[in-house]
Amino acid sequence: MKQLFILIFLVFGFTIGNAQKVQKSENPGSKATPNGQQKTPQAQMRFNFAEQEAIVKKFTKSFDSLTPMQQNIFFTNVKHIMDPEVTKIEPGINDSDPPSDAIVLFNGKDLNEWEEITWGPGGPGEKKPITWIMKDGGMQPTSSSGTAQTKRVFRDFQLHIEWKTPAGLPETATGQDRGNSGVIIQGNYEVQILDSYSNRTYRNGQAGAVYMQYAPLVNPSRKEGVWQSYEIIYTAPRFKDNATYFTTPRIMIIYNGVLVQNNVAIQGPTVFPGIPQYIIKEHGDGPIQLQQHGNPTTFRNIWIREL
Amino acid sequence: MKQLFILIFLVFGFTIGNAQKVQKSENPGSKATPNGQQKTPQAQMRFNFAEQEAIVKKFTKSFDSLTPMQQNIFFTNVKHIMDPEVTKIEPGINDSDPPSDAIVLFNGKDLNEWEEITWGPGGPGEKKPITWIMKDGGMQPTSSSGTAQTKRVFRDFQLHIEWKTPAGLPETATGQDRGNSGVIIQGNYEVQILDSYSNRTYRNGQAGAVYMQYAPLVNPSRKEGVWQSYEIIYTAPRFKDNATYFTTPRIMIIYNGVLVQNNVAIQGPTVFPGIPQYIIKEHGDGPIQLQQHGNPTTFRNIWIREL
Amino acid sequence: MKQLFILIFLVFGFTIGNAQKVQKSENPGSKATPNGQQKTPQAQMRFNFAEQEAIVKKFTKSFDSLTPMQQNIFFTNVKHIMDPEVTKIEPGINDSDPPSDAIVLFNGKDLNEWEEITWGPGGPGEKKPITWIMKDGGMQPTSSSGTAQTKRVFRDFQLHIEWKTPAGLPETATGQDRGNSGVIIQGNYEVQILDSYSNRTYRNGQAGAVYMQYAPLVNPSRKEGVWQSYEIIYTAPRFKDNATYFTTPRIMIIYNGVLVQNNVAIQGPTVFPGIPQYIIKEHGDGPIQLQQHGNPTTFRNIWIREL
Amino acid sequence: MKQLFILIFLVFGFTIGNAQKVQKSENPGSKATPNGQQKTPQAQMRFNFAEQEAIVKKFTKSFDSLTPMQQNIFFTNVKHIMDPEVTKIEPGINDSDPPSDAIVLFNGKDLNEWEEITWGPGGPGEKKPITWIMKDGGMQPTSSSGTAQTKRVFRDFQLHIEWKTPAGLPETATGQDRGNSGVIIQGNYEVQILDSYSNRTYRNGQAGAVYMQYAPLVNPSRKEGVWQSYEIIYTAPRFKDNATYFTTPRIMIIYNGVLVQNNVAIQGPTVFPGIPQYIIKEHGDGPIQLQQHGNPTTFRNIWIREL
Repeated sequence: MKQLFILIFLVFGFTIGNAQKVQKSENPGSKATPNGQQKTPQAQMRFNFAEQEAIVKKFTKSFDSLTPMQQNIFFTNVKHIMDPEVTKIEPGINDSDPPSDAIVLFNGKDLNEWEEITWGPGGPGEKKPITWIMKDGGMQPTSSSGTAQTKRVFRDFQLHIEWKTPAGLPETATGQDRGNSGVIIQGNYEVQILDSYSNRTYRNGQAGAVYMQYAPLVNPSRKEGVWQSYEIIYTAPRFKDNATYFTTPRIMIIYNGVLVQNNVAIQGPTVFPGIPQYIIKEHGDGPIQLQQHGNPTTFRNIWIREL
Repeated sequence: MKQLFILIFLVFGFTIGNAQKVQKSENPGSKATPNGQQKTPQAQMRFNFAEQEAIVKKFTKSFDSLTPMQQNIFFTNVKHIMDPEVTKIEPGINDSDPPSDAIVLFNGKDLNEWEEITWGPGGPGEKKPITWIMKDGGMQPTSSSGTAQTKRVFRDFQLHIEWKTPAGLPETATGQDRGNSGVIIQGNYEVQILDSYSNRTYRNGQAGAVYMQYAPLVNPSRKEGVWQSYEIIYTAPRFKDNATYFTTPRIMIIYNGVLVQNNVAIQGPTVFPGIPQYIIKEHGDGPIQLQQHGNPTTFRNIWIREL
Repeated sequence: MKQLFILIFLVFGFTIGNAQKVQKSENPGSKATPNGQQKTPQAQMRFNFAEQEAIVKKFTKSFDSLTPMQQNIFFTNVKHIMDPEVTKIEPGINDSDPPSDAIVLFNGKDLNEWEEITWGPGGPGEKKPITWIMKDGGMQPTSSSGTAQTKRVFRDFQLHIEWKTPAGLPETATGQDRGNSGVIIQGNYEVQILDSYSNRTYRNGQAGAVYMQYAPLVNPSRKEGVWQSYEIIYTAPRFKDNATYFTTPRIMIIYNGVLVQNNVAIQGPTVFPGIPQYIIKEHGDGPIQLQQHGNPTTFRNIWIREL
Repeated sequence: MKQLFILIFLVFGFTIGNAQKVQKSENPGSKATPNGQQKTPQAQMRFNFAEQEAIVKKFTKSFDSLTPMQQNIFFTNVKHIMDPEVTKIEPGINDSDPPSDAIVLFNGKDLNEWEEITWGPGGPGEKKPITWIMKDGGMQPTSSSGTAQTKRVFRDFQLHIEWKTPAGLPETATGQDRGNSGVIIQGNYEVQILDSYSNRTYRNGQAGAVYMQYAPLVNPSRKEGVWQSYEIIYTAPRFKDNATYFTTPRIMIIYNGVLVQNNVAIQGPTVFPGIPQYIIKEHGDGPIQLQQHGNPTTFRNIWIREL
């Protein structure tokens, strides 16, 4: 290990020098400032060595005379990490409102973030301008609309979305025929949307399900025509090669305030009936798609935060 | 494998018989019913074999003449799972309201779910009746109160809790001295509570941190005196032996509607300064504790769902 | 956090006292001794605080004058952990020989560790004395034998086992009919044994497969009649409830020195054809079973280490 | 979901057509052939649909008359996967010999796969030709040699390596001074090599340790001067950004035939003293390095398989 220490010394020496420079330019005054927007929150947790050193010195001049309690505090301080400052953002007034670092995908005013795609005998067709309309307090497909999709693509994210299934469907519409839609992620993984208030279907196909893979833990559905919410935390897969996951996609879903999917491992694309793991194909970032399924399911207050 | 098939036959035969019996008693009418409270949602996903069989039969009599599309549908149906019905619960009117399967720990009316514990030179002391008071719209410690803890204990859970730090603290109160409190889980793991709006401290010690282990991904803090919320999904550790985790505790935190901890692996108890992994001790289910730390931090709308 | 420190102090004070006592009684001489058999290797990693303290003192009297390199060394020493001493065992002369902490299940001399079980129309039948014989350099079923199983049961383990399929099978014996056997773990999970040298079958059913779930990464099979080896590292599942895994079983297999399963997550019991996850049932520790499948597959040098 | 089905149809139709073509060209005769070297074993597990279809047809013409057992078999067959054939390789005569798909890094004959690197005041220095010598049955540094490293770089791998520490070191050489070397992976993660037979040191710094992070589960060391072996299965980290792991590196180590590291999560580079997680830096594939540490530790029979 000795030789590694020499490396450490140099890497570390550089880091110290660097950290001190950063320190000087960042903190011209003595008062800590909450604005750290220019830093990446996911960036490396470098600790403020100068500050650590001061703490160390305070104790170590007379370490022998310290009580065990003080010595404990010394060790504690080893892990007090100052830099980089965590990025300050403004949350919404209500928790369901978009925070300041969110990309607002739909706020009731326009459909600028959306385009449309048709599915035909040749698979996903051409992109075209969005034909969804604003109605019933949100965005809604017409009977001739295709699937809506965001113009932007995403990797790992937190998505907030609100939806309601149409009120007044006939009693004869049951199972998958009541307000069927879905949030399709990266063109591959579908979170089911359905009127599941008192409309039983297969458990892995109801609202809150990862379609055909995971039934929701409980069913907290509201009635048709009432706004409902999904909070979705999604971690995209990483690939070993072009047909093998290195890590599977993972998803956590809070439905109307209730946990229904607890970071489950998605087994594969929704596309293959029943046995998803056979047709994994490498994919990159992808849009959020809202399925047009014949019923006028309505969406509102859609925002996303990249993780 | 042949001998296993014989086993399968018998196990499965039994399952079929059983499933059909259940089927009969559960569905006296043809209409699906949303009440499934008597079933455990986490229970085994047995599929309704009778229903599958009907699907199979429908196609298989003339399987040769099916189109590939129809054959696909056949395979799909293999994974349509009807039983057990997912338990229907009622969500709150607002997503932050307790759903029908939550245990309400504090709704502003009484402190019946709480007791108190002191910390003295001998560690955690005796339990005693709660001395916290109802003030400022929530529950709040007095200057002589101890830490509040639930009388009930929990394993894996979803916890909703709202809190605000005291308004009007002097400017001289900084760092860990502004509204410091914490949610302590199973007596071991602390989610920090602090006024972190414009009060910089070590990044792994601010609001939204798993204290001393994980800084929040971003800082969505509201100002002092304003209500804030934590949505906590916690998975308790399982132990290999009395001093080794088999799986570490895991925590996901949404703070004011914003993801700040993404299912991170807690490394060990918060108690040991800085290097938590050295003093892991086996523990079972535990209470939710709200730390009394000298500042009158106030709590409201606390509910929990066992997972 | 302040109050937690008080707890820490006490817990830690106690630990120090204890550790020093242990220290005294364990190390009567100054020379470290390699025998630590009385200690559990998986036990808590407590560090020798007395030694740490000495290191700390050495530096801290003049910490200011230390070079950054020396300060680094100080931090390094924080994580030098002396106690408990790692248990010394004796490995085999050859790596395939049982080390001193292994339970030898078969060493060519007797079948004392084994019993037998039949599978009939009623599922697994009564246990009875082993009827396998010693022949061809190992243990082997007769045509009327049942499945062999260990009298002991195991949870997490490292298993070494050697096997050979019968030489001289007719060319008409193909696929699953050439030397078919299997290592069945905890009555639920089968590692396939088969002559897969030049005998193609379904990829998830050949030697080295987790039967019906995972094909081997490559096929390093030797010819029929030649000894082959499995090194199996198995981690048993933990259960959420009586029908749900909290963590799935995991298995790593080295086959003839070549990695063929890289810690894969077993999806469920082998018993249900094709879709294992529907019939998970809680189970505890279980025996190692060697399947009798009509062909006289022979086994030798079987040993296991509990993890 | 309906629209997805249309997509499925097309994707799947294509797959079928493709599979049948492959089928024809691959299996000109009826006999299965073991040579499948042209296929990637990690490639997508496409199943042979033609074969499945035949199975399906066999049963489905009279599905009603099937016994439950036969119906089970039908479902089973859904998961019999024929293609792609698992790549056949030749294992070594002994399990420690290199299999046919291994890259032999050292077989006792030459040092062609190796170069050397020095560590100086400026960190890792220039690469230069290897100055290690062949002596004592293996490759060994001279007193003026630097660290040896492979010319090739690797990502995920299985590494077999044998080593012995020098015999006859003076009794005064203790702790880290007895045969200290190490296998350094991707320039960042060190598996310790040391004479740990009866030479106690800190538990996370002895042979079989992930240096400073994980003590071995047990200590199966052989004496100085005796050949020992490591079987290392390593999974490289994937990165979230240039300073954050998305997945940590993972390592499994079998030492002299005994499991000593069970797929542990490496916390960060070995370089920073004691607290590795603070200086994570993105890195790609890297060489295998053998540390020169002043003692003439000898290495032989080194081979690696990319995973």
